[in-house]
Amino acid sequence: MGLFKDLISIKDLTREEIDHVLVTADAMEPLAASGSDMLKGKILASLFFEPSTRTRLSFEAAMLKLGGSVISITEPRVSSVEKGENLADTIRVVENYADVIVLRHPLEGAARLAAEFSSVPIINAGSGAEEHPTQALLDLFTIFKNKGDIDGLNIALMGDLRYGRTVHSLAYALSNYAVNLYLVSPRLLRMRREIVEDISGKIKVEELEDVEEILPELDVLYVTRIQKERFPDLEEYEKVKGSYKVDLNLLSKAREDLILLHPLPRVGEIAPEVDSTRHAKYFQQTRFGLITRMAILALVLGAVD
Amino acid sequence: MGLFKDLISIKDLTREEIDHVLVTADAMEPLAASGSDMLKGKILASLFFEPSTRTRLSFEAAMLKLGGSVISITEPRVSSVEKGENLADTIRVVENYADVIVLRHPLEGAARLAAEFSSVPIINAGSGAEEHPTQALLDLFTIFKNKGDIDGLNIALMGDLRYGRTVHSLAYALSNYAVNLYLVSPRLLRMRREIVEDISGKIKVEELEDVEEILPELDVLYVTRIQKERFPDLEEYEKVKGSYKVDLNLLSKAREDLILLHPLPRVGEIAPEVDSTRHAKYFQQTRFGLITRMAILALVLGAVD
Amino acid sequence: MGLFKDLISIKDLTREEIDHVLVTADAMEPLAASGSDMLKGKILASLFFEPSTRTRLSFEAAMLKLGGSVISITEPRVSSVEKGENLADTIRVVENYADVIVLRHPLEGAARLAAEFSSVPIINAGSGAEEHPTQALLDLFTIFKNKGDIDGLNIALMGDLRYGRTVHSLAYALSNYAVNLYLVSPRLLRMRREIVEDISGKIKVEELEDVEEILPELDVLYVTRIQKERFPDLEEYEKVKGSYKVDLNLLSKAREDLILLHPLPRVGEIAPEVDSTRHAKYFQQTRFGLITRMAILALVLGAVD
Repeated sequence: MGLFKDLISIKDLTREEIDHVLVTADAMEPLAASGSDMLKGKILASLFFEPSTRTRLSFEAAMLKLGGSVISITEPRVSSVEKGENLADTIRVVENYADVIVLRHPLEGAARLAAEFSSVPIINAGSGAEEHPTQALLDLFTIFKNKGDIDGLNIALMGDLRYGRTVHSLAYALSNYAVNLYLVSPRLLRMRREIVEDISGKIKVEELEDVEEILPELDVLYVTRIQKERFPDLEEYEKVKGSYKVDLNLLSKAREDLILLHPLPRVGEIAPEVDSTRHAKYFQQTRFGLITRMAILALVLGAVD
Repeated sequence: MGLFKDLISIKDLTREEIDHVLVTADAMEPLAASGSDMLKGKILASLFFEPSTRTRLSFEAAMLKLGGSVISITEPRVSSVEKGENLADTIRVVENYADVIVLRHPLEGAARLAAEFSSVPIINAGSGAEEHPTQALLDLFTIFKNKGDIDGLNIALMGDLRYGRTVHSLAYALSNYAVNLYLVSPRLLRMRREIVEDISGKIKVEELEDVEEILPELDVLYVTRIQKERFPDLEEYEKVKGSYKVDLNLLSKAREDLILLHPLPRVGEIAPEVDSTRHAKYFQQTRFGLITRMAILALVLGAVD
Repeated sequence: MGLFKDLISIKDLTREEIDHVLVTADAMEPLAASGSDMLKGKILASLFFEPSTRTRLSFEAAMLKLGGSVISITEPRVSSVEKGENLADTIRVVENYADVIVLRHPLEGAARLAAEFSSVPIINAGSGAEEHPTQALLDLFTIFKNKGDIDGLNIALMGDLRYGRTVHSLAYALSNYAVNLYLVSPRLLRMRREIVEDISGKIKVEELEDVEEILPELDVLYVTRIQKERFPDLEEYEKVKGSYKVDLNLLSKAREDLILLHPLPRVGEIAPEVDSTRHAKYFQQTRFGLITRMAILALVLGAVD
């Protein structure tokens, strides 16, 4: 067994453990091109009880690039779950078919429960509204690769900070580093109080509604989708949405080396004209997602230390 | 080619052939941990025209553990079948892509028909209400591994014996051995007359409604789900369901070495408190399912004798 | 990189390039039986935004036979696409997970667009009503293998020539060879004017409504489905459908060495009694599809010259 058996919450990891994932990912990069036999004979079970094509493909590709293979449930409606089986039973069956389980589940705490019943490693690929630890790790890896270091950076998270699990996990992850964190959102979509309190004790956090105030200082701008459905009335939505859209005009006020990240899919938050600028790193982020997940799989399966 | 080309019905196998599968499975056990290249370059087509996540994953994992690979149809609604293609044509297409076909189909006789048209081996993964031969083989393997022998055992099948294809195939499989077979079910859900007649000629069979009468003698208790939908009126269902539930209280009357099996998923037939007892073997049964299917794949593909 | 980076339209290929695919496919045939490590470590992303089980399985099997592996989206409804992501973004994400992308899409031009955004090869597995280049190549390969040569043959395409993308791509492909092409269809389902004009400049083309006139001269009869839905009134449909059905009676007027092809699935256009005749090559065509796609994958990935 490597560094940790399961990966359930970013809050379970120390800074040393996170750094170790980043360093391991860095060493994986050449294997993403060449392929490897590191996990030959091992099987990943990919259990998606909620659709997330991108995350699923990323994990499956990571496993395959390391020479392992994949079985998957992507159709919860037609699985035993429909026959009323509980998650604990599903896990105790699937652990007999696989060497590691990647779980995506709509309910808070599902991954933690799974890990309690499973003798093989459980990797949380998103559960409830709170946790998406591998996304946070790949976000950190992208920052690390572009900036060389995470300490000392000015980082803004912008958009829907209330409902997006990505930014929740990322905020906790960043609180391990000496960063200045700016939380930019409409009032209605501010980050939950308990998270802000948790991380404020560790790093400098500032909440604001308009990114322009701090844009010239930023090293990293992390954008998320603002979903119309979150607003009680459409008028309110129409009023705010413009201020959370990144285009060339906005970027003209940013530092030359600002990097722009987004968990994708995007739906209008970043104008296509931005794609060809030096700021745009959201597709590279996808590539780093593959590499980070290769590292995580290798670590939980004990193929690297 | 190994022992047999296709595996359609447990009734097609002699005791010698069944024993050979069990011995082969025993030899496969270490390969489930380490992986193997035995079926490298071979492709399994997994055709599930009826959902059965557990069985599908089990076969796919078995193929992958032996170094083979997998293509699959799990979405009959969006396949050529929807365009009106008949099964014979589907098989004559898929046999060109794969080295072995695992077929699950709602209609009786589908697997037999497929085998007539296919030049590659067909393995029946459940068809109609009658046949599920690989489940019967893995049930036998679990009994064999726990008891060392099948001859001489007292075995009860309990629950819905009328509609469950699992218990039909298992009853036929057991009739090759010198066992005492007890069929425990509500009157409405008794095993079909023709099956009881078939096997009564070969082994001692007793039908009863209450397991407690024979529980102290049992070596194996095989439990299946009783589905509410099978009862014309709910009152009838409520009356019987309690008697077919296994809990610690019931087990206190059983032998210490009684083993408890279930094809899973369970929905209340076995209380969770039972899971941690020495009787509970239903999750181990899943593991033995993987191993038995590795053996079956290796046999039909001629990779072992 | 091999002969070409992407395969979008059969119209992009010269005769020399087509011939090169056929020769490469011929060399692949033994590998379909034995398997190979030619594409070990490489990943195919199979993106089907429109169901086509047969084509998907064929590509996936081709990749696996060459030692590569596969990730796939077969459920457009539950993918990011549902969240409103555009195709360009999807491609720029998936190219980071895979070494080659096979794309099936309901819209004309989708594959071309994908190729513009992708740094990894795009293979068009059907887009809109126009293009299905790999089907055309496997059709040519089947003719080539059965006849030894394509030049000089009398070839009829029969059935729905208006809506079937298969026959559109095939007509263009055949226009590179010295063939006599007969287009046999009901008036309502005649091939589109622009295609007939395009190919008439290069080869002899004749349109007719009844195959019997030219049947005795034919080397190849390529049959497609006539779908009831295409007819404004059912009476019209009932009138024509009989004339486009191939049975033993019709074939008694054909040459002994006529070969009969069909892209499958068929729904009544070819009577089952024909399957056992020497004319029937539509299941062999499926096998040659696997082999042709192995060649195409090896070519775009530069594993063969």
